[in-house]
Amino acid sequence: MAAWAERLTGVRGVLLDISGVLCDSSASGATVIAGSVEAVARLKRSPLKVRFCTNESQKSLRELVGVLQQLGFDISEEEVTAPAPATCQILKERGLRPHLLIHEGVRSEFDDIDMSNPNCVVIADAGEAFSYQNMNRAFQVLMELENPVLISLGKGRYYKETSGLMLDVGGYMKALEYACGIKAEVVGKPSPEFFKSALQAIGVEAHQAIMIGDDIVGDVGGAQQCGMRALQVRTGKFRPGDEHHPEVQADGYVDNLAEAVDLLLKYTDK
Amino acid sequence: MAAWAERLTGVRGVLLDISGVLCDSSASGATVIAGSVEAVARLKRSPLKVRFCTNESQKSLRELVGVLQQLGFDISEEEVTAPAPATCQILKERGLRPHLLIHEGVRSEFDDIDMSNPNCVVIADAGEAFSYQNMNRAFQVLMELENPVLISLGKGRYYKETSGLMLDVGGYMKALEYACGIKAEVVGKPSPEFFKSALQAIGVEAHQAIMIGDDIVGDVGGAQQCGMRALQVRTGKFRPGDEHHPEVQADGYVDNLAEAVDLLLKYTDK
Repeated sequence: MAAWAERLTGVRGVLLDISGVLCDSSASGATVIAGSVEAVARLKRSPLKVRFCTNESQKSLRELVGVLQQLGFDISEEEVTAPAPATCQILKERGLRPHLLIHEGVRSEFDDIDMSNPNCVVIADAGEAFSYQNMNRAFQVLMELENPVLISLGKGRYYKETSGLMLDVGGYMKALEYACGIKAEVVGKPSPEFFKSALQAIGVEAHQAIMIGDDIVGDVGGAQQCGMRALQVRTGKFRPGDEHHPEVQADGYVDNLAEAVDLLLKYTDK
Repeated sequence: MAAWAERLTGVRGVLLDISGVLCDSSASGATVIAGSVEAVARLKRSPLKVRFCTNESQKSLRELVGVLQQLGFDISEEEVTAPAPATCQILKERGLRPHLLIHEGVRSEFDDIDMSNPNCVVIADAGEAFSYQNMNRAFQVLMELENPVLISLGKGRYYKETSGLMLDVGGYMKALEYACGIKAEVVGKPSPEFFKSALQAIGVEAHQAIMIGDDIVGDVGGAQQCGMRALQVRTGKFRPGDEHHPEVQADGYVDNLAEAVDLLLKYTDK
């Protein structure tokens, strides 16, 4: 692999995943990944443009940012690209009235969306709300539609809580796709539109940007397919096998965000 | 389409799906599909060999047959090919110790199976037991295995209860496949081994056999891929679009089992 100086040359903007990079989450709350609070602060004091890019869909943006601020992170709602607000924009643009299969924590994001007589289904990381009854209701709504539209907030396979690996929305999206014979639209990483909207927000071109995430496929592979570079951190859902993934090779592997920021500050143009 | 006489020539054996062909099921029980009790009786009085071939995995074979007998059907456990007994045989042959994600109603089938220190996961149509917690536990068991083995009792997309369409095991199988990055082994229709074991039980070759089912893919497509002929009944989960399915064309469509048996008795060699 080329030297870091070469791999990081021309980087002007950084997209940061949140869960697994800034913090680990658990049923009872979130805990900082060591060194990440300081790493974010150092990054924001540098000339590099920074944006947070998350698939978090269990919490509203306000709640998510509140939790991170309490952990000590310098972050505001305006700095985050998240799937629920992006979905609401799509629903409004296309006149879609969703049946929601989501976590209660994110419901407030949909407060001003018309949900009468649904003509689509929106699913997110619903956690315990992924009961058979709720899945079956979403399935029935889709089967009753002439042109079924399924929007999924992300398509992650799993994420890591302190208690262990947890099924993410992706499997449930696949279940509904298979049962209904349809293809879902994904809002969130690794959708190119989602990465592009995050880059637009900081005015950085893809070839000048680098993604830092713990998900070899959703973060690293997705960003690379958009023309960005990407680093994988060995925190969060990282598993050793990721460094030998059959399809995706990160532009670099680092122990944690702190090491990634060390390298960025050392090797990108000042 | 050719005349019925031509389509049914040389048929010596009949495989009958149960749910959606003999009866419809609901949360409170099962109801006979009109004419099916008499149709089964007439078929069994004919020279045609008859075997029941079901993906039912919510009930034990004993309970299933008991329900059908109470509805008036002439059926015994020895006449039914069902996925749970077939799975137990595979588990024993391969020294597999399953973690079960199944309906309580079928648990007794696994009474003599070693379930200590699981080295595979078996899922079936678990209904309400497809909670997030249970799915996550199955996922975690698979992720902890070096060579994860997932066995699915059938892979149906959905079935029909009197209250409406219900998600079947197939979607949940897809969810675990995606989350774990693995491919499940299916025991049940449309697995060729499963159809073949049903045919062996009545000593009939595939080209001499016809399947009668309500599932255009699992029953009709699966049987045809084994070299059998197959009729779809317009009962159970049948939907009008099935007659124009992009990939599967039945050898004939009939209103119900009674019509299928009328045709078989009229046109097969006596």
